[in-house]
Amino acid sequence: MSGKLIVFEGVEGCGKTTQMHLCSQWLRDLSVSFSLTCEPGGTELGTHLRQLLLENSEDKPISEITELLLYGADRAQHIEQELKPNLADGKYILCDRYTDSTIAYQGYGRGLSMSIINQLNYIATGGLESDLTIWLDIDVEVGLARKRDQATLDRIEQETIAFHRRVQQGYTELAATHPSRIFRVDGSLSKETVQQRIQEILNAHLLNS
Amino acid sequence: MSGKLIVFEGVEGCGKTTQMHLCSQWLRDLSVSFSLTCEPGGTELGTHLRQLLLENSEDKPISEITELLLYGADRAQHIEQELKPNLADGKYILCDRYTDSTIAYQGYGRGLSMSIINQLNYIATGGLESDLTIWLDIDVEVGLARKRDQATLDRIEQETIAFHRRVQQGYTELAATHPSRIFRVDGSLSKETVQQRIQEILNAHLLNS
Repeated sequence: MSGKLIVFEGVEGCGKTTQMHLCSQWLRDLSVSFSLTCEPGGTELGTHLRQLLLENSEDKPISEITELLLYGADRAQHIEQELKPNLADGKYILCDRYTDSTIAYQGYGRGLSMSIINQLNYIATGGLESDLTIWLDIDVEVGLARKRDQATLDRIEQETIAFHRRVQQGYTELAATHPSRIFRVDGSLSKETVQQRIQEILNAHLLNS
Repeated sequence: MSGKLIVFEGVEGCGKTTQMHLCSQWLRDLSVSFSLTCEPGGTELGTHLRQLLLENSEDKPISEITELLLYGADRAQHIEQELKPNLADGKYILCDRYTDSTIAYQGYGRGLSMSIINQLNYIATGGLESDLTIWLDIDVEVGLARKRDQATLDRIEQETIAFHRRVQQGYTELAATHPSRIFRVDGSLSKETVQQRIQEILNAHLLNS
């Protein structure tokens, strides 16, 4: 049996962490072998890169291309060290963010060239795509309000509302372009209902296939 | 007056550091405004990346594509934060390694696809090339013997002789392909003679042009 790469995507505060946790409990109850990981920061090297990416440096800001390449480096290492071995072991991988985040945030959000982003994603992944992506769709303001209840906001969370709206638009267009891979779930519903919807999608498209 | 990007290239132990130091003394005597920098590590972010790139981690080695992307991230930040502002200020920049190192080390040395390397170099630089590159050509064994006199060797210096020979072959082919940009200097000559040769090249192609 070969594993499956299941990615969770969405704007800040969309509920990925909560839903991935509930999903992992469900897979454990089903005795499905799985791993839980994230980008950036899914490897030891990645934790260093995540820190460089998310910390604020007002006098020496990271350039947009540097940011893109650091996310790519994090991803390449994550694939080699975590995703490929776990897929080979037949595991279901629940991954917090993957290539669609780069398209939504660096492409739609920052306005970097889609051609450059696609080249970069291909260099980093060698073509490894998610088997199934859950997009937790939530209103940008609602998501950011959830985050603001936290103690501190990172560099991305501190971006403007307009930036996060462009990211949201990115996810909307991605889901329309890849309907057989990206599944939208209304993230404004109760966490139990969201989880039920996710389980139905995974049952229909992966676990029973 | 717009500045000039002067890059020093070559295998380990070729004498770049010594020659860049002598060259900067000469430019100072000529009252030419210059800056001295390096890749990786020419910015604050870059010093973190340089550490990640050059330290040894035997149990979790950095993948070849990760390495390529980290060098690219270091370069993109270096260009934005150091090279572009200094060029705009009309400075002569003496830079230890640039895109030809990526071609020689990751392309010829590691055998990564030249198409991927060219894409990556273009993404990182936006097309900014060196105005003039000094290639200090030295026998691989002689260069490595100089390095072995140092206390510790970094991850790249610890590569096999065969790896460094492929890097050397890379420089040889690059110099043949770009004769108006890359100038070979025999690095086995005395440091005074090497410096004299470098000054002749800079005089002929930049300072008096």
